[in-house]
Amino acid sequence: MEIERARRDYEELRGKGLKLDLTRGKPSSAQLDLSAELLRLPGETHTAADGSDTRNYGGLQGLAELRALFSGVLQVPAGQLIVGGNSSLALMHDSIVYCLLGVPVGGERRWADEERVAFLCPVPGYDRHFALCERFGIELIPVPMTPEGPDMDEVERLVAADAGIKGIWCVPKYSNPDGVSYSAQTVARLAAMPTAAPDFRIFWDNAYAVHHLTDHPAEIADVLALAAEAGNPDRVFVYGSTSKVTLAGSGVSLFGSSPANVAWFLGFLGKGTIGADKVNQLRHVMFLRDEDGLRAHMLKHAELIRPKFEAVDRILSKELGGTGLATWSSPAGGYFISLEVPDGCAKEVVRKAAEAGIALTPAGATHPYGNDPADRTIRIAPTYPDLDELEVAISGLATCVRLVGAEKLG
Amino acid sequence: MEIERARRDYEELRGKGLKLDLTRGKPSSAQLDLSAELLRLPGETHTAADGSDTRNYGGLQGLAELRALFSGVLQVPAGQLIVGGNSSLALMHDSIVYCLLGVPVGGERRWADEERVAFLCPVPGYDRHFALCERFGIELIPVPMTPEGPDMDEVERLVAADAGIKGIWCVPKYSNPDGVSYSAQTVARLAAMPTAAPDFRIFWDNAYAVHHLTDHPAEIADVLALAAEAGNPDRVFVYGSTSKVTLAGSGVSLFGSSPANVAWFLGFLGKGTIGADKVNQLRHVMFLRDEDGLRAHMLKHAELIRPKFEAVDRILSKELGGTGLATWSSPAGGYFISLEVPDGCAKEVVRKAAEAGIALTPAGATHPYGNDPADRTIRIAPTYPDLDELEVAISGLATCVRLVGAEKLG
Repeated sequence: MEIERARRDYEELRGKGLKLDLTRGKPSSAQLDLSAELLRLPGETHTAADGSDTRNYGGLQGLAELRALFSGVLQVPAGQLIVGGNSSLALMHDSIVYCLLGVPVGGERRWADEERVAFLCPVPGYDRHFALCERFGIELIPVPMTPEGPDMDEVERLVAADAGIKGIWCVPKYSNPDGVSYSAQTVARLAAMPTAAPDFRIFWDNAYAVHHLTDHPAEIADVLALAAEAGNPDRVFVYGSTSKVTLAGSGVSLFGSSPANVAWFLGFLGKGTIGADKVNQLRHVMFLRDEDGLRAHMLKHAELIRPKFEAVDRILSKELGGTGLATWSSPAGGYFISLEVPDGCAKEVVRKAAEAGIALTPAGATHPYGNDPADRTIRIAPTYPDLDELEVAISGLATCVRLVGAEKLG
Repeated sequence: MEIERARRDYEELRGKGLKLDLTRGKPSSAQLDLSAELLRLPGETHTAADGSDTRNYGGLQGLAELRALFSGVLQVPAGQLIVGGNSSLALMHDSIVYCLLGVPVGGERRWADEERVAFLCPVPGYDRHFALCERFGIELIPVPMTPEGPDMDEVERLVAADAGIKGIWCVPKYSNPDGVSYSAQTVARLAAMPTAAPDFRIFWDNAYAVHHLTDHPAEIADVLALAAEAGNPDRVFVYGSTSKVTLAGSGVSLFGSSPANVAWFLGFLGKGTIGADKVNQLRHVMFLRDEDGLRAHMLKHAELIRPKFEAVDRILSKELGGTGLATWSSPAGGYFISLEVPDGCAKEVVRKAAEAGIALTPAGATHPYGNDPADRTIRIAPTYPDLDELEVAISGLATCVRLVGAEKLG
């Protein structure tokens, strides 16, 4: 009997006393070692390209040479980029705060004074996006993902009808967690769609802009240009960071948008800081040098990460292929694999895995309010563990899926 | 005639074609050079005292060893400190945002939902404090400074009567700009005074906690302990930073408060970031080492700054002493000297100085809404220019005071 074999395998798994962690999308130590040079930089120099002293106050928008370096990959003119601190999440937080406490460009009032503010959340999606909105009382409305990005029929229908919908979360390239890259048509429709809210914003979290795993990097359409062409120049807030390029806790972040939005953002930013850490910006410019340097650096990451993604795919195929118990994504970049188990099984799989010492992101975390109505999506973060640990963990996870599947369906 | 001599001197000054800047409290290059070692740190290591990897995500509260290092000088238990990014102003900004968009500990509703939110502003004070409040629609109410701190009779009267008054800005040691350190009695009264608002907050910007210029460092009373003793444990938000200890643009900042407030603050902070730059925190621990290391480092700053403060005092005494045209502070620490000219003269002095190529902080900047009703306070920031430039600038400023004084009064 399949269920007996699954029970035996699970008991054996529990007996191993594992302590493995697949919860968060953290780079491994080996990946961080790729940026070891940063820990000794800038060394003897401290001067920016414009001759200013990076050690002192000032430079609210950030070093021009760093903005130029990321202009191409983020598809934002350098003059329309702002360099933030070590966290793009903080820039998203600040954007929401500024919209709540100040009137957005094109808006009629502060979001704090609106009857209701809601955001569309393509699901599965990123739990920190959802948590940020929840903290500030913003309502979360899930919309399904498709292989081309959010279900645009649904998105268009909702934003056209409801002026309370003020934004949508997008991870357009190698999305978190299912690795989807938005099609050109999806991007064009997002940029051009009529919205009932005059101050509707696309939160374009291009977190994995350069995080390719294959020789055929995904390309996404230029959302800022498309929005401007469609007469919606101020619709898009673009975010990026080097958290998964250099050092996860000590990188630099970027915000990009229309000239009007950049001026609006700087107007708030300048009240809360005299400028971000420019020495760290200089450090990054010296280390990455230019777009070619950035590309070469990301190839080294891919060499470390690719075997892990391949191992997950290989083990899941071997242990779950043809069972009808699971499907999973095989992303061409990014940090996550999305595992879909039969409806009503995800929570129980995660619980059983935890009992066997394998920590996974809580089931439901990929959905607003932690509620995956079908209870079927599990996010796998394969980058942090060593390869052999990862293999043990994924094999164990597959055992849990087989057991829960057999118990629930068999 | 005095006025003719003053006119002659001013024309001569204008003829020099100066271009000097006394506007902002920036450290000089020589001061920044004191921290040159930071630019090569952490070097080979990246491990915090608890064994965690500072390069990766996490550590929302900041490195324990850095919090321990600043616990004594900020008079906050290390467990009640949070390390932020490079700007304590950003922590003040965030505190206000969290109060506006979340219910403060002990409060009844979000400040954004209050009819009216006002802050007391001891004047002269720090323009960036005022600008931050203004940006978020918080009303500013000036209260006069005395040689012991804010006029406490006035403060007590206002906060007891008006539940709309939610906060007060305090720079308790070597205050910006007049260098006053609060007396023990002032601190005790602030900690204990009855307030109509249940969620009244003291914004305790201890920016110059270790920035002594003499051998007799000012000591201020422990406001957090006094507030707790008085039954107001959650009244005080404490801020500090190394912006004027290490690198102005690349230091670390700290927030301290009661355990309840720290938990409240972390609850918001954790939605907007996974943690501040821990490599920079490690860098600072390695460089400053401990409180003795910090003290020794600050002595080097004092050696560079003291001659500048002495020069200002010497030149003003020589050129304006006994004229009845000016008084000025002789602070024992901090970054500023406050120059008081006859009523109605400050704007004109600053205008004339600017025409002669000497840039000063705009007259009025030391007051809410940029409005110094008596038009008499000028803030002098002597640290950034070289000593010889500073001497020329102060001498020129004195010339402007003599001219305006003679024109207006004579």
